[in-house]
Amino acid sequence: MGKLRASVTKTFGILTAGGDCPGLNAAIRGVCRAAHDRYNMTALGIAYGFRGLIEGDSRVLSPDDFSGILTRGGTILGAGREKPFKAPPAHGDTEVSLDKVEAIKENYRQLGLDCLVILGGNGTNTTGYLLAREGLNVVGLPKTIDNDIVGTDRAFGFNSALAIGTEAIDRLHSTAQSHSRVMVIELMGHKAGWLALYAGVAGGGDIILIPEIPYDIKVIGRHLEDRARDGKTFSIVVVAEGALSIVEDKMDKKEKKKYRSETVTPSIAYRVAREIEAETGMETRATVLGYVQRGGIPSASDRVLATSLGTAAADLLARGEYGRMVALSGDGISSVDLSVPAGKVKTVPRDHYMVDTAVSVGTCMGVE
Amino acid sequence: MGKLRASVTKTFGILTAGGDCPGLNAAIRGVCRAAHDRYNMTALGIAYGFRGLIEGDSRVLSPDDFSGILTRGGTILGAGREKPFKAPPAHGDTEVSLDKVEAIKENYRQLGLDCLVILGGNGTNTTGYLLAREGLNVVGLPKTIDNDIVGTDRAFGFNSALAIGTEAIDRLHSTAQSHSRVMVIELMGHKAGWLALYAGVAGGGDIILIPEIPYDIKVIGRHLEDRARDGKTFSIVVVAEGALSIVEDKMDKKEKKKYRSETVTPSIAYRVAREIEAETGMETRATVLGYVQRGGIPSASDRVLATSLGTAAADLLARGEYGRMVALSGDGISSVDLSVPAGKVKTVPRDHYMVDTAVSVGTCMGVE
Amino acid sequence: MGKLRASVTKTFGILTAGGDCPGLNAAIRGVCRAAHDRYNMTALGIAYGFRGLIEGDSRVLSPDDFSGILTRGGTILGAGREKPFKAPPAHGDTEVSLDKVEAIKENYRQLGLDCLVILGGNGTNTTGYLLAREGLNVVGLPKTIDNDIVGTDRAFGFNSALAIGTEAIDRLHSTAQSHSRVMVIELMGHKAGWLALYAGVAGGGDIILIPEIPYDIKVIGRHLEDRARDGKTFSIVVVAEGALSIVEDKMDKKEKKKYRSETVTPSIAYRVAREIEAETGMETRATVLGYVQRGGIPSASDRVLATSLGTAAADLLARGEYGRMVALSGDGISSVDLSVPAGKVKTVPRDHYMVDTAVSVGTCMGVE
Amino acid sequence: MGKLRASVTKTFGILTAGGDCPGLNAAIRGVCRAAHDRYNMTALGIAYGFRGLIEGDSRVLSPDDFSGILTRGGTILGAGREKPFKAPPAHGDTEVSLDKVEAIKENYRQLGLDCLVILGGNGTNTTGYLLAREGLNVVGLPKTIDNDIVGTDRAFGFNSALAIGTEAIDRLHSTAQSHSRVMVIELMGHKAGWLALYAGVAGGGDIILIPEIPYDIKVIGRHLEDRARDGKTFSIVVVAEGALSIVEDKMDKKEKKKYRSETVTPSIAYRVAREIEAETGMETRATVLGYVQRGGIPSASDRVLATSLGTAAADLLARGEYGRMVALSGDGISSVDLSVPAGKVKTVPRDHYMVDTAVSVGTCMGVE
Repeated sequence: MGKLRASVTKTFGILTAGGDCPGLNAAIRGVCRAAHDRYNMTALGIAYGFRGLIEGDSRVLSPDDFSGILTRGGTILGAGREKPFKAPPAHGDTEVSLDKVEAIKENYRQLGLDCLVILGGNGTNTTGYLLAREGLNVVGLPKTIDNDIVGTDRAFGFNSALAIGTEAIDRLHSTAQSHSRVMVIELMGHKAGWLALYAGVAGGGDIILIPEIPYDIKVIGRHLEDRARDGKTFSIVVVAEGALSIVEDKMDKKEKKKYRSETVTPSIAYRVAREIEAETGMETRATVLGYVQRGGIPSASDRVLATSLGTAAADLLARGEYGRMVALSGDGISSVDLSVPAGKVKTVPRDHYMVDTAVSVGTCMGVE
Repeated sequence: MGKLRASVTKTFGILTAGGDCPGLNAAIRGVCRAAHDRYNMTALGIAYGFRGLIEGDSRVLSPDDFSGILTRGGTILGAGREKPFKAPPAHGDTEVSLDKVEAIKENYRQLGLDCLVILGGNGTNTTGYLLAREGLNVVGLPKTIDNDIVGTDRAFGFNSALAIGTEAIDRLHSTAQSHSRVMVIELMGHKAGWLALYAGVAGGGDIILIPEIPYDIKVIGRHLEDRARDGKTFSIVVVAEGALSIVEDKMDKKEKKKYRSETVTPSIAYRVAREIEAETGMETRATVLGYVQRGGIPSASDRVLATSLGTAAADLLARGEYGRMVALSGDGISSVDLSVPAGKVKTVPRDHYMVDTAVSVGTCMGVE
Repeated sequence: MGKLRASVTKTFGILTAGGDCPGLNAAIRGVCRAAHDRYNMTALGIAYGFRGLIEGDSRVLSPDDFSGILTRGGTILGAGREKPFKAPPAHGDTEVSLDKVEAIKENYRQLGLDCLVILGGNGTNTTGYLLAREGLNVVGLPKTIDNDIVGTDRAFGFNSALAIGTEAIDRLHSTAQSHSRVMVIELMGHKAGWLALYAGVAGGGDIILIPEIPYDIKVIGRHLEDRARDGKTFSIVVVAEGALSIVEDKMDKKEKKKYRSETVTPSIAYRVAREIEAETGMETRATVLGYVQRGGIPSASDRVLATSLGTAAADLLARGEYGRMVALSGDGISSVDLSVPAGKVKTVPRDHYMVDTAVSVGTCMGVE
Repeated sequence: MGKLRASVTKTFGILTAGGDCPGLNAAIRGVCRAAHDRYNMTALGIAYGFRGLIEGDSRVLSPDDFSGILTRGGTILGAGREKPFKAPPAHGDTEVSLDKVEAIKENYRQLGLDCLVILGGNGTNTTGYLLAREGLNVVGLPKTIDNDIVGTDRAFGFNSALAIGTEAIDRLHSTAQSHSRVMVIELMGHKAGWLALYAGVAGGGDIILIPEIPYDIKVIGRHLEDRARDGKTFSIVVVAEGALSIVEDKMDKKEKKKYRSETVTPSIAYRVAREIEAETGMETRATVLGYVQRGGIPSASDRVLATSLGTAAADLLARGEYGRMVALSGDGISSVDLSVPAGKVKTVPRDHYMVDTAVSVGTCMGVE
């Protein structure tokens, strides 16, 4: 268990890209402490995701910088949504983006980096894969409250969001019960319903709607009426924000435009609430939990996971195993090639055991 | 400290009216335990607020009913928004309502009640006052997360909502900071801004907007730009939902209709966010915390307050001091005549010390 | 995803044995809902663990019994520490115990059980294994805050205790820092140090002592002095209660007796605190977190795990796969033969990745 | 609500003395922001309480120092227990102490202080009073989790400790109920039982023991047996640590010595647990919550109170109203002469309404 110190030291850049989430600072600390204490490396913190690398905005991180940040939400580096490989949406003109990639490669060289450590979700690890193909040494860490990254059993951030979402459902139970109402709560999850599914099971949701399973309002209505007949005069509906995309997929262009124009934020929760009232006549209220899901102190589980993944990333750096993403695999830490998560989204399979668990305890998934 | 038992026993009805909030069950337990153990009274639980009294829906509460409910959110009696004295909105015909008042009086007699204990906000205690004028014996308890009841320093429910709102602001800080954004959070409070003001101070909000102080978007813009100049690249704006009414007051009928039609729930948070983006060009996001503010386990302070007020209400019953609302006054429990809260709303005075506190620590209240 | 109903229905007994922990009620609900809704089985709740089965103390559980208990701490069945196969400590006389086993077998028959579902830790699942060898149909669920059950990646209860332990460490940080002190906190874990290890990593403990790694006070002293030299004037020491056994193992009988007599509860935290003060002269304080670690509302993760394991247990019942314990295996639910956990304790291997994680971020494990 | 800037600026020292507690940083921020923004004053942070003033250990606090600390536990200044006016315990020789007072006066002059702001409990405000008599300008803030300061309705720190203590009681309920046990929990409170009383009421404690009311174990035993007869097979006993002093007061010197030698920390919880087992034969367990009560993130209420008191202290500075302690009085902020709290302890009067509340809901206070 002693500390080994490499005779040859390395310099690496570290950045956090995409939306922020609980555990980013814990992971930064994990990478930097292990790299510093164990391997005598130098860390350059890059500001606001890939934007900082494009603009050459970085600074050396000393132990004082990554001390005491384990429990803090957000990211000391700043997060950014810059995607260097993404073409501008309107024209399909990729020139600007290619300039960005060149700027990244140039700054990588100028900063004297031996490796780039990136903390992010699907998009970020896809960018990492593409940069690795361009010849850069890259190590990725899986971060997202959506838990939709292929190649790892769990991404950090998910557990904290699960705790927050579940506590919100707990709170709505009181009101639903006191007022004999249907309460709809919308949790995050654009393409994957993991958060709504797990929080729905943890919170005892009566109905859970996720993007992977297009719901049938008739089935929902029957389930609520069955419950009412059993004397359950209230119900909780947990819905992933991405369930909206399914609804919109069924619309033609005109309907979609009208629907979007009607609402400040096109919100599935309000839509489902209206549909339930129309279908059943039951008093229904909607809550969109929003940004509180991704902020604040990370849960103990996320701190443990982020710290483990961070130190494992430092080990990859030390061994020169680049082009990989560290991952949780069963009860151990491993790594996968960056091509594994690149360009993919881990969605909830219909036959996943947690769907079965939900159904087993009487939850309606919106379909027969 | 011994228990005294009255030789003559009384029967009282107890109901919870208006929206639910944390501490209702603690208060019910306080009233019923003291009434039962100390005074040997019989409690009739009336279902779903005044509706239950109109319809004669009640049952005897035994110690088993009010045991173990101290920490539970919501209300074991069910809450209802029935207002017997309110005229039907469309026709101005008050006959139906008078029928309801007669039904209440009739059921009060038929159930053999010596007193009616009501737990609720301004509307409920106003109804209590009117019923007292009709000859019923009424004792009121002040319950609301809005803390806008005249006659008591504090209503139960407020402290729990303050804790929830503050925790949400804490969470938004991470994201605001990581993304250099302005985050707007909307807390409850239709007519009074107590919750937004207190949670804003507790959460270190940079701007707090309450219904009592009409805001000037120019002032807000300048404050945000001052912060940016000082290197503070993010800001938190806490806004009471009732701040919307001020905005609408300035609109003519047509604008108001258009504004309301644009949004699923007319939300001040989204409006303020749009105004800030227009005024400053800063990236701004909105969150409406919604129903989670009124549910869940009551805070320790609310349990203590609700229990104290509950036992004090039982003392009033025992002494036959009817027509009163129990109240927190300084560091003691007292009571006031039901006419004190009736028909009033306790709003935030501009010179309240908490407004001054907010301004003293650099918070902008939306005005010079 | 439809519900299937078995034509032949079964009756099973269900009991919770050993210490209570968060998630027991969630698991009971999971078993009973799935068994009832999906398989039309009848559940008999057995009171206070094996004691209830010995004494024939049971009652039919209806849906009302297992509705609304998902979030409640403790166990609606009552927990008991009766171990029917354990010989009386003094005499080695097993007759009484054998009587208990016979009573269990007799009651199992008389109650008409098709299977016995047991929720417990190592001891309970060992008892389950022995009862299976006696011919009873048994299905086990792994429950313990110690996470020391062989055959499952995780037992429910552990995650909740981890959250509580970590929050306590967070709190001690403030005081340690404000007063420039060493704070020692003792967490549960008789034979295995999982809880102290994980909470120690999550809470940023500077020193973590677990039963599996006998500590050297000289090493601890040097680590604290190194920190002081680096300007870190405070430190947090997280110690598993079972680390005491190591200390006692080194004592002769007389020393041990003296040591035990000196203390109300022989506590490793106070001992380590004294040793640190003697070794370094640094002001040191101890806290023994105690029973709060095993009570209260289960964490979202524990609710999800307990619900999944519960429904999986019902599936085993339906398929007649007896003699097994349900288990978490990677990101899926499986089951193992009851012989797998029986008689074993899963301790922390010295080369476990979490030990390596701890050391990588600079934590001292009490040895070089 | 505009900011006024004094033309003449002042310099003040600020220190935190006694044990740390939640809200200290919020109060420091409140004082310093208001003093800086509104009055253009200069703040000198003095390290580790009065020790820093004796040793001249201070530094100028800039806005960066007191920004972002609102939610942090502990104190950025460091806390110290130095009492300059206290004579050395052994010899009664006060010379050393007088030297300390002289050193304080000398450093006060040398640092060019116009005022000294002290945050602390009874001891600290007493020291403040004595320093004011020596001619120094002093403003005090009331800080303590014990809430035992005369002159203010509430001290900050108390509300956070109340929340922590209550949550711990909630957790013990699960275990008590599952195992049909008596659980004893010891909360802080040397001389005053406010914390145990309020947390006991908030947590639904069945028995509450505080230093102000010497308990009779016979009464406790009868209460537990009455509960058992009513089918309540478990009980929660909440005891203030200071209840020990009452026990010891009844001992003679020899008994006291023996008692103290028997225990690592002489703990009332373990003593009461043993007494209950001896008196009733009921299985009883003890938990001493310890230091977790005074650390961690302050509650929303404490942040609000500490911020208000802090800004009010800055107002006193600006007006030159020295020799006073800011205070909460009803629903407003006021101040009292430092002679009011000096040398006193606010204990729980036997006829306090919260004692009556506790008794009204069936709680035994240890006496008839």
